[in-house]
Amino acid sequence: MKITLLCTGKTDFSYISSGMQIYEERLRHYVKFSVVYIPALKNVSSLTEEQIKEKEGLLILKEIGTGKNGAAKRAGNAWVVLLDERGMSFDSVGWARHLEQKFLSGGTDKEIFFVVGGAYGFSEDVYARANEKISLSQMTFSHQMVRLIFIEQLYRAFTIMKGEPYHHQ
Amino acid sequence: MKITLLCTGKTDFSYISSGMQIYEERLRHYVKFSVVYIPALKNVSSLTEEQIKEKEGLLILKEIGTGKNGAAKRAGNAWVVLLDERGMSFDSVGWARHLEQKFLSGGTDKEIFFVVGGAYGFSEDVYARANEKISLSQMTFSHQMVRLIFIEQLYRAFTIMKGEPYHHQ
Repeated sequence: MKITLLCTGKTDFSYISSGMQIYEERLRHYVKFSVVYIPALKNVSSLTEEQIKEKEGLLILKEIGTGKNGAAKRAGNAWVVLLDERGMSFDSVGWARHLEQKFLSGGTDKEIFFVVGGAYGFSEDVYARANEKISLSQMTFSHQMVRLIFIEQLYRAFTIMKGEPYHHQ
Repeated sequence: MKITLLCTGKTDFSYISSGMQIYEERLRHYVKFSVVYIPALKNVSSLTEEQIKEKEGLLILKEIGTGKNGAAKRAGNAWVVLLDERGMSFDSVGWARHLEQKFLSGGTDKEIFFVVGGAYGFSEDVYARANEKISLSQMTFSHQMVRLIFIEQLYRAFTIMKGEPYHHQ
């Protein structure tokens, strides 16, 4: 089992990178985990929001390995989860149980991608490829802060699965 | 109108302080805003969770000005909002409207306290004093990260109220 957090665009704030690093290191005690950044688009000022989502979407799908230009090696195998305001919501324990089910049903060769979109969200092609959508909150968090909030929540899920004392109910 | 974010215990992570500083500075363009830290308790290892909440609660109430030892100068005037998992939840626009209503109804002399509890939450006395409870998510965030998430959400609310382009729907 491998988990990849796919982030659209670089991290603009050093506090976000510093925070993520803490949880990245902690997560690696539990699972093969990496963060992959989709390169930021160039010359976005000449593009509409739809065009930005479209172009970012192609890069996301390429990384997942199911895009037009992507190798098909991981196609069908990877489980793709979008971080999306319209997604399913959980409390932290429910989320840990959901993730645990995915591990139990998926077998150890499975790869899970969690995808954080850019400022305008995901293209229709990305929605079409996704296996599920999860929401961290009804509130809109900045797409930068979502990375940090999610990675802490992923770490929290592992501590809950392992019965470790990080999470207070 | 004055807003105080009251945090229980110091901030343990420098990435949280750095992030908060960014939004603190931005918020001061809109409102008289300050962050106040309740000093961390000493010798907590000899205390039960209930005792920790109790002692932290006294310090919170003192700061708000309605505790046994606190001056009554602000009593009854300050609006006290707890950041609590069992609180009301909003989307970001709903939250901005809620806050705006509070400003409109409150008059400019009103002080609002947003209170982030410690690792174990709030004492009954703090719940009793609170005017309302709001929840950022069904998920449990670390009490450290709640500070950062909330301050960004407070900043976001002001940009929504002012019709500024920070928030994408």
